[in-house]
Amino acid sequence: MTTDMPAVTVGIDFGTLSGRALVVAVDDGRELGSAVHEYAHGVVDRALPGGGPELPADWALQIPQDWRDVLRLAVPGALAASGVRPEQVIGVATDFTACTVLPTTWDGTPLCELPRFAERPHAYPKLWRHHAAQPEADLIVRRAEEAGLPWLARYGGRISSEWQYAKALQVLREDPGVYAASDRWIEAADWIVWQLTGEETRNPCTAGYKGIYQDGAYPDAEFLASLHPDFADFTARIDHPLTPLGSPAGRLGAAAAALTGLREGTVVAVGNVDAHVTGAAAQALDPGHMLAIMGTSTCHIMNSDVMAEVPGMCGVVRDGIVPGLWGYEAGQSGVGDIFAWAVRTTAPYEYAVEARGRGISVHELLSEKAAAQPVGGHGLLALDWHSGNRSVLVDHHLSGLIVGLTLDTRPEDVYRALIEATAYGTRTIVEAFEQAGVPVTDFTAAGGLLKNSFLMQTYCDILNRPVHVLAAEQGPALGAAIHAAVAAGAYPDIRAASAAMGRLERHAYTPDRARAAAYDPIYAEYRALHDHFGRGGSDVMHRLRALRADTSADSRADSSAVTSTTTPPAPNC
Amino acid sequence: MTTDMPAVTVGIDFGTLSGRALVVAVDDGRELGSAVHEYAHGVVDRALPGGGPELPADWALQIPQDWRDVLRLAVPGALAASGVRPEQVIGVATDFTACTVLPTTWDGTPLCELPRFAERPHAYPKLWRHHAAQPEADLIVRRAEEAGLPWLARYGGRISSEWQYAKALQVLREDPGVYAASDRWIEAADWIVWQLTGEETRNPCTAGYKGIYQDGAYPDAEFLASLHPDFADFTARIDHPLTPLGSPAGRLGAAAAALTGLREGTVVAVGNVDAHVTGAAAQALDPGHMLAIMGTSTCHIMNSDVMAEVPGMCGVVRDGIVPGLWGYEAGQSGVGDIFAWAVRTTAPYEYAVEARGRGISVHELLSEKAAAQPVGGHGLLALDWHSGNRSVLVDHHLSGLIVGLTLDTRPEDVYRALIEATAYGTRTIVEAFEQAGVPVTDFTAAGGLLKNSFLMQTYCDILNRPVHVLAAEQGPALGAAIHAAVAAGAYPDIRAASAAMGRLERHAYTPDRARAAAYDPIYAEYRALHDHFGRGGSDVMHRLRALRADTSADSRADSSAVTSTTTPPAPNC
Repeated sequence: MTTDMPAVTVGIDFGTLSGRALVVAVDDGRELGSAVHEYAHGVVDRALPGGGPELPADWALQIPQDWRDVLRLAVPGALAASGVRPEQVIGVATDFTACTVLPTTWDGTPLCELPRFAERPHAYPKLWRHHAAQPEADLIVRRAEEAGLPWLARYGGRISSEWQYAKALQVLREDPGVYAASDRWIEAADWIVWQLTGEETRNPCTAGYKGIYQDGAYPDAEFLASLHPDFADFTARIDHPLTPLGSPAGRLGAAAAALTGLREGTVVAVGNVDAHVTGAAAQALDPGHMLAIMGTSTCHIMNSDVMAEVPGMCGVVRDGIVPGLWGYEAGQSGVGDIFAWAVRTTAPYEYAVEARGRGISVHELLSEKAAAQPVGGHGLLALDWHSGNRSVLVDHHLSGLIVGLTLDTRPEDVYRALIEATAYGTRTIVEAFEQAGVPVTDFTAAGGLLKNSFLMQTYCDILNRPVHVLAAEQGPALGAAIHAAVAAGAYPDIRAASAAMGRLERHAYTPDRARAAAYDPIYAEYRALHDHFGRGGSDVMHRLRALRADTSADSRADSSAVTSTTTPPAPNC
Repeated sequence: MTTDMPAVTVGIDFGTLSGRALVVAVDDGRELGSAVHEYAHGVVDRALPGGGPELPADWALQIPQDWRDVLRLAVPGALAASGVRPEQVIGVATDFTACTVLPTTWDGTPLCELPRFAERPHAYPKLWRHHAAQPEADLIVRRAEEAGLPWLARYGGRISSEWQYAKALQVLREDPGVYAASDRWIEAADWIVWQLTGEETRNPCTAGYKGIYQDGAYPDAEFLASLHPDFADFTARIDHPLTPLGSPAGRLGAAAAALTGLREGTVVAVGNVDAHVTGAAAQALDPGHMLAIMGTSTCHIMNSDVMAEVPGMCGVVRDGIVPGLWGYEAGQSGVGDIFAWAVRTTAPYEYAVEARGRGISVHELLSEKAAAQPVGGHGLLALDWHSGNRSVLVDHHLSGLIVGLTLDTRPEDVYRALIEATAYGTRTIVEAFEQAGVPVTDFTAAGGLLKNSFLMQTYCDILNRPVHVLAAEQGPALGAAIHAAVAAGAYPDIRAASAAMGRLERHAYTPDRARAAAYDPIYAEYRALHDHFGRGGSDVMHRLRALRADTSADSRADSSAVTSTTTPPAPNC
């Protein structure tokens, strides 16, 4: 291969509303071209594409053909944009939202694509943020607690309604016919690989974080029978040998080659999850290197050679991020969406006009105004629980709080207090790891919030440690491309490939000593409020939410035209 | 006198920014005509009219000539508007903001009108909301506590920085020359009567509520000397026989007659305070009839035949509202100004546009949206302490709080929660009276917030008792006119005059049983938060405020161009 025909890989990232393909040079990870395809159906949360009754609250489905269209349109688009030829592509890899999961036949055909199931909502893929399986999740936790099952502690004591078992149990309870026809129950992360290679494989990341696969086994039949008599054999629908991350799942089949414009036989890596694969892009794979993917919510991913039951983490999975290490995951259920809420509800007319006039966003305007004040100057303190608290309290029924309001309090003061609150939340998570004996040596940030440098500096000051940042636009797709290079044999393992192809700006932010010192006592106040409202000092948040749910139920009983005011459960990383 | 020439009185109300005169029929209190004069200088809080250095923070002065101009312009204006002739006017009475107080010579000449004092800020009248005497108020409280003086409990344990002694002590400490030249230290309420009659009088309302006059005496010389050696004889500057409320102070002098267009010799009533005189207008003078004057802040006025030390009240004064009863006063330091804050900071662009398009205020829009939801539906709970808490906690360093925030929380939800919080604050005050053994049998509302019927109904539901309302536009001026009728001998006493001339809509609001029941548990949550943050459970509000004050001080040290972010102490009723 000549220097103007470098070896490349293609990373394909399947997000919530779109998928993108990225062509990357194998030698140094430079991005050569990309293309995006917006899903035609986006998130299906009102009615099925063919019409029919309105879906219940908290439902969120997707359409498999939208995903195939990413292969059909975005992959050729990225190849064209990069100017590379298919023979340069030595490997392809994917990453997906998770737990996004669907029922299929033995050959991987989605049940929703069988005409007899086209009008059955439970036959469709359930998107990660389908939150209607909460009763099932609660039951799983209760039964696991009763049985004293050891795996529960590896998920912070809580199994999410978003995960495989809860969603499958909902199908069984609500549409046994669909359940009975589900030969396979499979993560979209694995299903899409099946479409590329023609063979079913399973990855250890979703198996561990979303499928309760621990110490080489899924939950046993006795436990599953305690959930529902017909659920005892559920594991057979997901069980399959796991292919280590970064390994080949197979080779591109003829049909997939025709669809994508790639060569038949191109190596395809095993499936992976968007958050976790970003660790490779951000060179955050060494033990103790925490990666925070900061967007509407934040996921924290970290490898360690120590196994510990960190209170309130989302999960710890052996080989879950790279082979040979314990992969930890934690999360904050509301971050960027809290700032968006602030812009929606606390930015007055004059601010909107000023931002418009200056051609900047209201976020930028508020950040600029918020930055021009000393630590503690606004006199406010907030709890960042507008979407509940994922880590470390694992309680989605908590709510946001702000204290210190005066008649002088300005929108930028509230905005800054909310940014600070989410940073205090991050610090709480970091400290929970360290107190549990899992060192956090480095902190790296990725995601959409990177573009707000005031916010990043605030995190840095509050964490009082340097913050490195991912230096690539398409973190997950770059991470997938790195996995593809490993699967194709260009590097011996994911960490080596990450070192060569990842993109990290080390020490992008360093703490200001004076500000860091000034934040310490305010963080102590945050922790005091955190424990008071989150650990039983006052249960007012739960009681207010219960009152609200009651009035919502009353309203539904009273009226046929009602908008639910219940907050959906927070997304779970 | 024929029926088309009925006897009338003139009530003159001196407010913070303007004064108004109202001509009222003596037989039934109907309003015949009024006129307003806006003070040329308004509130002097930046520099003296002649220029000179910037006034320090928290200063607020007024200009006596502005008050004379109300006599000169508004009184003839009201006479003209009403079409009455001077000979129909049987009496005139005034009411004033309080404690608005000034130093004068023996003949009542304001020191600020002497050329040698024209550039001395301490020679000017200090408006009620001059809050720069906080150190002096703190000292008074400390010394009174040390000496175990019994009168302190009659002011809820706290002497306000707004009152006569604190303001005078500030003058002594900061400008002894002005203090030495002050032959008299007099409430504007009494000074304006001096201008009308040519003779000094003093009223028991300001003497009691603002001058620490209790059980027939002012604080003694020993106590005053403990504040400052030169302050021992201060009482001589305010001491004067008190004229009972509703009694004549004298008769209109020639100069005042020429100024006002009224006849020389017209009876002039003794001075009074705007809030307290409103009780006559609202027929809220019987024992147990609480009157809430609801505006930017709220004052609660109530007579009782019981004397008790109600925790957190502003003051209890014998004969302070009408002769022969104990007059109680309590207050909420932030009410309407909290709603204004909400409009300023939480009403987004779209709301401003919608309100503008519909030709309504943002307050009206938010009220309309807020009304369309069940009790508890927003899931929020607020503490109404943006300006601190006057009654019952008497702590101006508390701050506002809101809990229950979610990503679904809308501006109208916050607005409604703030309205409810101020209503819970009112209920807390009512219950404090009742628990102290002072029955509250009736609740009447007056003031600018009456125009918001959603707010009034919410108060009614949360208080769970009927709410009567003042049915006159100009409550204080009507109250003054009623006092004028008594002074002129048209009625035997204030209560009889109030019964004939007052304007009350009884049972304007009656509680909705279901809503009242639904509010009870939320009020219990309010009280729990109230006690946690206000009574020592958590001192976070004080610590946040201290941090804020520190950063403000640091900023002042760092920069010559600084805007103070310290909240001024709340106005005190």
